[in-house]
Amino acid sequence: MNPAKPKVVIIGSGFGGLEAARALRQAPVDITLVDKSNHHLFQPLLYQVATAGMAAPAIAAPIRHLFRKQANLTTLLGEVVDVDAQRRQVRLATGTALPYDHLIVAAGATHSYFGRDEWAPFAPGLKTLADAFDIRRRVLLSYEAAENEADPQRRRALLTFCVIGAGPTGVEMAGTLVEIARHTLKNEFRRIDPASAEVLLIEGGARVLQAMPESLSQKAREQLEKLGVQVRLNARVTGIDATGLTIESPPAPGATAPSSARIDSGCIVWAAGVAASPLGRLLAAAVAADGSPAPEVDRAGRIRVLPDLSLPGHPEINVIGDLAAAQSHAPGQPPKPVPGVSPAAKQMGRSAAANLLRRLRGDTTAPFRYRDFGNLATIGRNSAVVDLATPVGPLRFSGYFAWLFWLFAHIYFLIGFRNRIVVLLDWASAYWSFQRSARVVADVKGNEDA
Amino acid sequence: MNPAKPKVVIIGSGFGGLEAARALRQAPVDITLVDKSNHHLFQPLLYQVATAGMAAPAIAAPIRHLFRKQANLTTLLGEVVDVDAQRRQVRLATGTALPYDHLIVAAGATHSYFGRDEWAPFAPGLKTLADAFDIRRRVLLSYEAAENEADPQRRRALLTFCVIGAGPTGVEMAGTLVEIARHTLKNEFRRIDPASAEVLLIEGGARVLQAMPESLSQKAREQLEKLGVQVRLNARVTGIDATGLTIESPPAPGATAPSSARIDSGCIVWAAGVAASPLGRLLAAAVAADGSPAPEVDRAGRIRVLPDLSLPGHPEINVIGDLAAAQSHAPGQPPKPVPGVSPAAKQMGRSAAANLLRRLRGDTTAPFRYRDFGNLATIGRNSAVVDLATPVGPLRFSGYFAWLFWLFAHIYFLIGFRNRIVVLLDWASAYWSFQRSARVVADVKGNEDA
Repeated sequence: MNPAKPKVVIIGSGFGGLEAARALRQAPVDITLVDKSNHHLFQPLLYQVATAGMAAPAIAAPIRHLFRKQANLTTLLGEVVDVDAQRRQVRLATGTALPYDHLIVAAGATHSYFGRDEWAPFAPGLKTLADAFDIRRRVLLSYEAAENEADPQRRRALLTFCVIGAGPTGVEMAGTLVEIARHTLKNEFRRIDPASAEVLLIEGGARVLQAMPESLSQKAREQLEKLGVQVRLNARVTGIDATGLTIESPPAPGATAPSSARIDSGCIVWAAGVAASPLGRLLAAAVAADGSPAPEVDRAGRIRVLPDLSLPGHPEINVIGDLAAAQSHAPGQPPKPVPGVSPAAKQMGRSAAANLLRRLRGDTTAPFRYRDFGNLATIGRNSAVVDLATPVGPLRFSGYFAWLFWLFAHIYFLIGFRNRIVVLLDWASAYWSFQRSARVVADVKGNEDA
Repeated sequence: MNPAKPKVVIIGSGFGGLEAARALRQAPVDITLVDKSNHHLFQPLLYQVATAGMAAPAIAAPIRHLFRKQANLTTLLGEVVDVDAQRRQVRLATGTALPYDHLIVAAGATHSYFGRDEWAPFAPGLKTLADAFDIRRRVLLSYEAAENEADPQRRRALLTFCVIGAGPTGVEMAGTLVEIARHTLKNEFRRIDPASAEVLLIEGGARVLQAMPESLSQKAREQLEKLGVQVRLNARVTGIDATGLTIESPPAPGATAPSSARIDSGCIVWAAGVAASPLGRLLAAAVAADGSPAPEVDRAGRIRVLPDLSLPGHPEINVIGDLAAAQSHAPGQPPKPVPGVSPAAKQMGRSAAANLLRRLRGDTTAPFRYRDFGNLATIGRNSAVVDLATPVGPLRFSGYFAWLFWLFAHIYFLIGFRNRIVVLLDWASAYWSFQRSARVVADVKGNEDA
């Protein structure tokens, strides 16, 4: 470390943190990139690990390796537990205090059970590799348990897979679970027929993929149903336990009371709620401790940032990615909320880095502007929806070509050359053989997995 | 299940069990293949998963998928806890009793700490995928901890890797750990130099790879030392704890007392002792329960089998693979012990299946004959030793061509077409880039891993 150079600490190596670190590669600063895991995770493909389509290393790259040539950056494996905004220190779980002159907080989000944390053991969410292994184990072992179950009712429950939340992750999970049931496991069982498994996609809102235009939501729903997913809209989950869940639907025509239904299920996946990292609230309190105005924290735990992604009274702190409730400031237009998607996180990372360089030069910072290139979601085999923003207006399509577009976009953006080749090979092999290459449960008794 | 057909239960889906099941694919029997994991593991490459060179799915194939076309076989995920040889039932942990007319026990081996089970938490062995993830985590996190360690002595201990036992697994592990230190992690750390890490291979006997001819042991040792491994022969481990181990060596020249030394180490791998599955002793007792002569169980827990691999008084039970203390019966030659290697397990699987068919036809069974085609061991980058049995005598070579030979032999025998391609690609990429594709620790706090 050169004591003369300003110290930059970046918390989190998701899309935002990684991009900020890269954008500072030529900067005269000493960067420490802190993350509690040793890898950057390509989250858009995490559902593939959860559904045994990919091995974990195909979508995870060691952070150290990514930055081995960036001499101004030190990678640190550690968990941030607090920020002292007055002393300008980040505190780690080990007790270490990391001093900073400039702090970029990109700690991301986790899943939220809307205050019903007791549901967590029965309906795991999908944010980390450990989550993906947990879900993979539950899916594969449900079929194994069904094969050994003599009671028809319990067998039926073991072959009922519920995905809660019809955002991109929920839609991908449901589409893939149907493919596993109908194709991957064909002829492999002697007592059960995997194709008889039911996959339910349960959504509280009125349509799937609510971030998409309504026409594409409709297309996505049609494609899901064609694949064999049972889509339940306007269905609010009111209870989850070890053997299933209860949902409440609006009153039937002519009735006044909402209807409640019990679904017995041996495998439930939570893809409904997202909450910002708890670091958000800690940071908001830390910033206010010196009398600066406390930044607003929204219901999802995200910090409301200033137009340049900094915090009130603390221009040396930037919050980016899923932890930030940011606005896009395009000249001549009213500010617009920035969606919680990976291109936005990357753009915020670059913007925070650029503003940091401006501050070092003594210039004023620039407001963040989000460039929306569109939105894609895959649904399953040969099915996806694409909504591209083009200079002449939106370009929307769905089906096979949308799926090809999604495929190549994801391979292109996957970090690391080797990974891209392996992913392409895995996909090509999975596509033609209907097989999934990672149907491995490391230890069926314990918690360790592959 | 057809009640008229004889029921065959095979315990274990390692090389022996898998081969027996395959050899019975045309037989008029109902086979149940029971295993406590959902995959067949290509154990000769498990060290690659442990050293982050491969993802788990590359060397693990779902058992169900392997047998999807074999209509006379049912796969069962379950743990066998006992055998009732009188009622001819296998009992599972779930309480289920599986009836059999013919039983093939191929439950394999696990690691043994020679009565010092308290060493297990500090020096994991390498038999399952869960073991491999545990070792991978320890290796990778040792470097991370060293990077964060201010105390030079503790840092040195964290950069000292000890492998106990210089059999094939120990030799492979040591060779690969050196490659990680010298090449893979180059330039990735800012405070430590990974190349300064020390790798010790500790062996109680007088040479490495004791199953090999002495000349190849010597070659292997030279290659290990050239790679940078410190080989300690005649060194008996007398203690292991959280911070290192103690070894005792024979008296120095002129001294009378053996010398004892302490080695501080942050990462210890146990590759020394192998013990047969505990099912061996249970089975021996079960067989004797009806007054049949109790089969002998050797020190390693293996069951002494009759020449046709069956048990005294129980021609319907075969024991094969690492669980069997078997002899090879070549015509005109005295019986010779069968080594615990995968080709022997496969041959025993085929022999047990052939004898089962003979019994069904009312013929007498044939004694097992082991055909020894030779022995290979890899040491590290470009290094291996090969001892081939040819009709004109042994063919022995070492070094680069031995390594190429080892490489293609292993790719050839890897089960599953996709896996072979992926493994080849992983290896090619690892070879040219010195990189390892699976440097992922799923959860650095917990026990779940990738």
